[in-house]
Amino acid sequence: MKIKVGIIGGSGYTGIELLRIIHQHPNAEVHAITSRALEGRKISEVFPNMHGISELTYLLPDDNRLFECDIVFFATPHGVAMNNAALFLEKNIKVVDLGADFRITNATTWSDWYKMEHTQESLLKEAVYGQPEMKRDAIKDARLVANPGCYPTAVLLALKPLLQNNLIDTSNIIADCKSGTSGAGRIANQATLFCEITESFKPYGVSGHRHFPEIKQEIESMTESPVGLTFTPHLLPMSRGIEATIYVDLIDSDIDILACFENAYENEEFVKILPEGVYPETRSVKSSNYCQISVQYVEHSNKLVIMSVIDNLGKGAAGQAIQNMNLMFGLNEQEGLKQIGLLP
Amino acid sequence: MKIKVGIIGGSGYTGIELLRIIHQHPNAEVHAITSRALEGRKISEVFPNMHGISELTYLLPDDNRLFECDIVFFATPHGVAMNNAALFLEKNIKVVDLGADFRITNATTWSDWYKMEHTQESLLKEAVYGQPEMKRDAIKDARLVANPGCYPTAVLLALKPLLQNNLIDTSNIIADCKSGTSGAGRIANQATLFCEITESFKPYGVSGHRHFPEIKQEIESMTESPVGLTFTPHLLPMSRGIEATIYVDLIDSDIDILACFENAYENEEFVKILPEGVYPETRSVKSSNYCQISVQYVEHSNKLVIMSVIDNLGKGAAGQAIQNMNLMFGLNEQEGLKQIGLLP
Amino acid sequence: MKIKVGIIGGSGYTGIELLRIIHQHPNAEVHAITSRALEGRKISEVFPNMHGISELTYLLPDDNRLFECDIVFFATPHGVAMNNAALFLEKNIKVVDLGADFRITNATTWSDWYKMEHTQESLLKEAVYGQPEMKRDAIKDARLVANPGCYPTAVLLALKPLLQNNLIDTSNIIADCKSGTSGAGRIANQATLFCEITESFKPYGVSGHRHFPEIKQEIESMTESPVGLTFTPHLLPMSRGIEATIYVDLIDSDIDILACFENAYENEEFVKILPEGVYPETRSVKSSNYCQISVQYVEHSNKLVIMSVIDNLGKGAAGQAIQNMNLMFGLNEQEGLKQIGLLP
Amino acid sequence: MKIKVGIIGGSGYTGIELLRIIHQHPNAEVHAITSRALEGRKISEVFPNMHGISELTYLLPDDNRLFECDIVFFATPHGVAMNNAALFLEKNIKVVDLGADFRITNATTWSDWYKMEHTQESLLKEAVYGQPEMKRDAIKDARLVANPGCYPTAVLLALKPLLQNNLIDTSNIIADCKSGTSGAGRIANQATLFCEITESFKPYGVSGHRHFPEIKQEIESMTESPVGLTFTPHLLPMSRGIEATIYVDLIDSDIDILACFENAYENEEFVKILPEGVYPETRSVKSSNYCQISVQYVEHSNKLVIMSVIDNLGKGAAGQAIQNMNLMFGLNEQEGLKQIGLLP
Repeated sequence: MKIKVGIIGGSGYTGIELLRIIHQHPNAEVHAITSRALEGRKISEVFPNMHGISELTYLLPDDNRLFECDIVFFATPHGVAMNNAALFLEKNIKVVDLGADFRITNATTWSDWYKMEHTQESLLKEAVYGQPEMKRDAIKDARLVANPGCYPTAVLLALKPLLQNNLIDTSNIIADCKSGTSGAGRIANQATLFCEITESFKPYGVSGHRHFPEIKQEIESMTESPVGLTFTPHLLPMSRGIEATIYVDLIDSDIDILACFENAYENEEFVKILPEGVYPETRSVKSSNYCQISVQYVEHSNKLVIMSVIDNLGKGAAGQAIQNMNLMFGLNEQEGLKQIGLLP
Repeated sequence: MKIKVGIIGGSGYTGIELLRIIHQHPNAEVHAITSRALEGRKISEVFPNMHGISELTYLLPDDNRLFECDIVFFATPHGVAMNNAALFLEKNIKVVDLGADFRITNATTWSDWYKMEHTQESLLKEAVYGQPEMKRDAIKDARLVANPGCYPTAVLLALKPLLQNNLIDTSNIIADCKSGTSGAGRIANQATLFCEITESFKPYGVSGHRHFPEIKQEIESMTESPVGLTFTPHLLPMSRGIEATIYVDLIDSDIDILACFENAYENEEFVKILPEGVYPETRSVKSSNYCQISVQYVEHSNKLVIMSVIDNLGKGAAGQAIQNMNLMFGLNEQEGLKQIGLLP
Repeated sequence: MKIKVGIIGGSGYTGIELLRIIHQHPNAEVHAITSRALEGRKISEVFPNMHGISELTYLLPDDNRLFECDIVFFATPHGVAMNNAALFLEKNIKVVDLGADFRITNATTWSDWYKMEHTQESLLKEAVYGQPEMKRDAIKDARLVANPGCYPTAVLLALKPLLQNNLIDTSNIIADCKSGTSGAGRIANQATLFCEITESFKPYGVSGHRHFPEIKQEIESMTESPVGLTFTPHLLPMSRGIEATIYVDLIDSDIDILACFENAYENEEFVKILPEGVYPETRSVKSSNYCQISVQYVEHSNKLVIMSVIDNLGKGAAGQAIQNMNLMFGLNEQEGLKQIGLLP
Repeated sequence: MKIKVGIIGGSGYTGIELLRIIHQHPNAEVHAITSRALEGRKISEVFPNMHGISELTYLLPDDNRLFECDIVFFATPHGVAMNNAALFLEKNIKVVDLGADFRITNATTWSDWYKMEHTQESLLKEAVYGQPEMKRDAIKDARLVANPGCYPTAVLLALKPLLQNNLIDTSNIIADCKSGTSGAGRIANQATLFCEITESFKPYGVSGHRHFPEIKQEIESMTESPVGLTFTPHLLPMSRGIEATIYVDLIDSDIDILACFENAYENEEFVKILPEGVYPETRSVKSSNYCQISVQYVEHSNKLVIMSVIDNLGKGAAGQAIQNMNLMFGLNEQEGLKQIGLLP
């Protein structure tokens, strides 16, 4: 019997990526997909890659079919999962929120950054931050998983071996991050029109971005030292992919950092440490659930530079959500996720 | 037991696409990959999406391991398969040539277009043109398959229902085709540098392109009438995808053309006929083995326009090659090929 | 004294292209720019390339400053110029409409395609179709110029030498055209988001596009024979540029077509005929007012193929509008327009 | 009388950009252009935007016509200008080297980074670093100008107001830089093929890039304090544009940094300081000689972030070279350079 999956808010890029991955998953199938705006329309009208592939039709979010599912994924603006997760949990339906509603454990911090009161503090306590390489065991037992943000995924995987081994001065961490435009969603918006994005590059959210408190919280969970973090996102003229270039100061520059990273991830299928002198490219992980990481100590600058790439829709969203689902249902964590990056 | 696959000339985009598809194929595995220039190098040094995925190393083309395979794919410049296919066939190793050596049945025509003598006329007679939707039965029994060109695949699938039902004037067929740049290969070349291609579009090969005689030959195989064909390729500022816009004159404009196409392909998984008024986009089939086709009778012009899209590396090359392999080995034709187009 | 220019509806890509060209024009300056939605905002807030360059601020369309101009350009949706042109003409202010309101001389045909009644038939009679290479003298004397559509400009320049010399069968003209996405405008729209356009290509408007009657009308103005035209637009994953590939049958295939084109345009600065065997690329005319044309007789198909490229915002819109302005004010036609295409 | 310009090594992207700018320059004309490989070919065969625009033909580098010039630009690989500059200087022909031969004042440092002995130490002493906003007066009197690298131009303009006013801790400067692919040149190269670059992003040269010693040298020229610099270049999937995001620690966070930048550049036409909260986009300066800079103090991180954009072929190469030429010949520094960035 396949796991029955519900997708709430399935009109965007995360929605189609969930559909695409689940289509290839041997143990899961989409049982219901909802969109208030698209109710009654076939998904192939909305996603033309689905012509002749699926006869699914968008339902209203309160459709009963959603409550027949074993798990629901929220791919919705913040606030929606917060207000609706309990409806499913109380029916023993597991919940993964691909939005931000349960990522920040401190409700006040959440409210400051998301400009909305958090009404579900008890769920906030229960929710598990769904980064399998950091919290695998807790995820296995979770009913409610907060799927991490895309930038936090790239940054935290790059920092974890350093933090857990106390190798860096945590007071001066700089994460210069770049994202493909699919991270901005599929809503009509002048700022993300083709002609506004192509052949251009820019920073944004420099004075403050919502992934900042999320990254900081998770760094702090891995260290006792005070954390000073600077995080700058930039927008790339491409669809998919995030690259994080992270600058830190080593406490002891004699450590074999590459070996430390290789050890930290030797049993992790989805995190690949690159050989010395090889730097990651976002295309290497496009359409996949992989993360590639490279470390470079720069002698003339006396800095350690860590570079990390993921597909923001894959390991940064839908792929990681399916990885979490696999864990929550006791499946092989890699099921349905072993596609290689699409090159070219 | 998995089918042992050999890839000869595996350094280009067709090579990595074969690797990617076979990685997900339940019944096949790459046993040997060759490249004279890359001998001894790991494939992950050449294709960075393979880091930590495969330990394959490039062999020389005469390595014995190649002769342990059940099937070899030639992904080589023309001339190579012609001169080497027999070595494998005589050892009962099946051969699929993704190049052009066995596509043109007339050796003289081949020589005229490829500027090289054809030395293997008997193999030319034996070879089956590997378009499963046209020649499925012959492919099942073939030892040697000539995998079709990318443009011919897109054009022929679009014309087949019309030709087989004698619905058009075959003396005036115009195929205006556009291809992504991956069709030009991975060899260092000023003309296909990023800065030469991006934000630009151009026709090329207007006075004559090698896919012209191939398309014409296959059209002629489906009709008794004299064939007049104009074929113009263009280069798109994108990696993957071919679109063919084909202009024909209907003999009888009262025919229900859409129904004719739907009937022709109702049992074909990989060819999808779009609803009336919906036109195909190359992205819908990106990374997949699907073809999407749309037909539009234009009243004020009295023309039938047929539009067809494929991924030139998928259905136009490696995908179709695997589809042929599946048929040649009696497997389910769709095995390993049901990935949906990557969107976005 | 510089010509005082007004731009009505200056919030889109045509608006910024007018601003950019006029900034370099020795004899003109923008005196007023309007946008109902952007009233009071600085143009540098809307077009970030203008920071520190201009202190212009958007006015309301009824601002008096507009009536101090010598000429106004309408860069507005259809209907606006139709209803407002007279206000300027009666004050002896010349008008160039970059929209479609005065392009179609038959009011009924216009209404059929634009779904709106034409209320200004007398202005329609007066308006001159602003294609300088076809109607230079009439433009010099015009008060009201209908600036041609982008596709019509590319197609008509490619056909004019053939039509004026009666060299082709006009009953079977096929124009397969491809446009960059800037032609779709700057309004927020899901269909033209970066992630919807990049790495994809598609036909659109196949059953009928508003530039069809415009092209047909102007072809008919150059020939006595009945005209059969098929016009198919496609959308390119790039910002600027139109390519038209046109298929026609020669009446007499012995004519030296290249010489015919060279003669036709030998005194035209902005139309360049390419040497035999050289095909045009859209990038060659990017950001410029040039058109490049190539002709190729295809022997094995017995067709003449004409290929033409322009920048849809340059010669296809703002550049041609300035060329018209130059003519209307008795300036050197090339003034401010001799920038070379931006490569790369 | 126009300045007679010679371009040595005019086959690449810097060459065509020089041609394009000089074409619009009222006081200069290209008198000779050389390329050993392209001798005898018309420039329009090499740069298709030049069809019908110029009849220039490539000469050999020792052609006499070169010695009739008033100034020569070297757009050559390193080593060429070093060995040939003296030939021109002794004939009173001014020299601007767009390569790296005279940028590093210490010959040993140059040799370490460029893997070649420096044979012209006296010229090295004479050469002026051609950054007009930093060394205008020296450039006016120079015979030999070392045109700055593209990354150094973006970084140094962003740091100058801070360094000259001693506002930052110079021991911890991080410059995370991103460049369009035209910076990699026009030589055939697998790594910069369209399909390798599009839809991807990557760091490169992380352990050491030749622009590092150049940036460090010029920073040190503006401060007494010890300089600790980390510089990481990345490659963008676009043609033109560099963005530098620079992280520094303020000595006194109460300073009005924006005012400091505005004052520093209030008389500089080509450097625009953006309003608070507006961040630069590379497209804003595409095809232009402008630089746009933004400063943002990030409170929760206690860092100052400075962001700077230029066109790597404009202000980062050919534009700045022409600006230097204008200064060297006593012309208005802005002559021929006031084009606005091309948007879209």
